[in-house]
Amino acid sequence: MQSRSQETRRQIKSAAIEKFCRSGYDVASVAEICKQAGVSKGAFYHHFPSKQSLFLSIMEDWLQGIDSKLFNRQTPEKKVPQTIQEMGSTLGIVFKAASGQLPMFMEFLVQASRDIDVWKAVITPYREYQQSFARLINEGKNEGSFKMEIDAEGSAWVLISLAVGILLQGVLDPEAADWNSITNKGVQMILDALQKGES
Amino acid sequence: MQSRSQETRRQIKSAAIEKFCRSGYDVASVAEICKQAGVSKGAFYHHFPSKQSLFLSIMEDWLQGIDSKLFNRQTPEKKVPQTIQEMGSTLGIVFKAASGQLPMFMEFLVQASRDIDVWKAVITPYREYQQSFARLINEGKNEGSFKMEIDAEGSAWVLISLAVGILLQGVLDPEAADWNSITNKGVQMILDALQKGES
Repeated sequence: MQSRSQETRRQIKSAAIEKFCRSGYDVASVAEICKQAGVSKGAFYHHFPSKQSLFLSIMEDWLQGIDSKLFNRQTPEKKVPQTIQEMGSTLGIVFKAASGQLPMFMEFLVQASRDIDVWKAVITPYREYQQSFARLINEGKNEGSFKMEIDAEGSAWVLISLAVGILLQGVLDPEAADWNSITNKGVQMILDALQKGES
Repeated sequence: MQSRSQETRRQIKSAAIEKFCRSGYDVASVAEICKQAGVSKGAFYHHFPSKQSLFLSIMEDWLQGIDSKLFNRQTPEKKVPQTIQEMGSTLGIVFKAASGQLPMFMEFLVQASRDIDVWKAVITPYREYQQSFARLINEGKNEGSFKMEIDAEGSAWVLISLAVGILLQGVLDPEAADWNSITNKGVQMILDALQKGES
C-alpha cells in the first residue's frame, strides 16, 4: 500500500504547511497538525519521528523542487549562456510556487538561524547549487562562450546572490517591480560580463 | 535632561535586541525587557507606547544606519561608477554591524510577513533605496559614464537584489565565501554592463 502511505505523508505535510504559516513553527503542535490532516497521532509518528523531522522534510521538498526546476535545462546542443538565461526565466516558476508561502519561507530562515540541524539542511543544498553553477560556468569557458580568466566560483556566488535577493524581494514585495523582467535583466548583465566581448 | 532620556531609550533598545534574538519577538515580554534594561515599566511606556513601537524603532535605526552608510559617498568630483564601487565596499561594514544579529534580521522579515505595519516600515525605506540608486544611475548616464539606453529603474533593482542576496547569505553562511570579494565582483560585473564599452 505504498501509494496510500504516500498520500498520508502528503496530507500531513500539507496540513503542517498551513499550520506553520498561520501560527509559526513554535506554536503549531503535532496534535493540531494531526487534526487538520485528519490522521491519528500514531499515523503521524509512523511517518515522522518528530515535528522537526516533518519540518525538515517539507524544506527538503522545497529545495529539491528548486533544484529540479533549475538544473534540468542543460542539453548537449545548447550553449551555456542560453542555459543560464533559461534558468533565469525559471525563477518565475519558483515565484509562482512560492507565492503565498512567504511565512513558510521565513520560517525556514528563522529556524535555520536558531537550530544547527535545520541550518545544515538549508546550507548543504544551497552550497550544492553554487557548485552546480560553478561547473556550468566552467563548461561555458570550455565551450568558448565565456572569458577564460573568469573566476567560476565567485561568479557562481554572484548569480546565486542575485537569485536569492530577487526571490526574497519578490515574495516580500511582489508589487514593487516586474520581478521576471528584473531577473532577466540581471542575468543578462552578468552574462554580458562573463561573455567574450568584441574587444 | 535630554541626554539621560536618550540613554534610557538606548538601554531599552539594547535589552530588547538581546531578548528578541534569544527568545523571539512573540515570546519576549515587556517585563523581561524592562528587567534586562534595569528600567521601570513606567519608564518603558514613557518611551514606547508598545512592544511593537519599540520593535519598529529598532528596525528604523537599523535601516537608517544602512542608508547613511550607503548614500553619503557622493561628492561632486567623484564619478558615479566609483561611487557605486565604494558603496559595494561599504556592504562589508554593514556585514560587520549585522554579524551576530542574524536572528534579529530574520525577526524583521518574519514580522514583516505577518504584520502590515511592520511590512510598511520595511518596504518604505527599501523602496527609497531603489529610488536613490535609480537617481544615481541616471546621474551616471548624464555625466557620460553609463550607456544612455540603460533602464535606470530596473538596473537599480538588480543592484538592490544583489545586495540583499549577498547580505542574507553573508549572515546565514559567513564561511561559505569571502563575501566582501563577492560583493566587489558582483558590483563590478553590473558596472561593466552599465558602462560605455569600446564597441
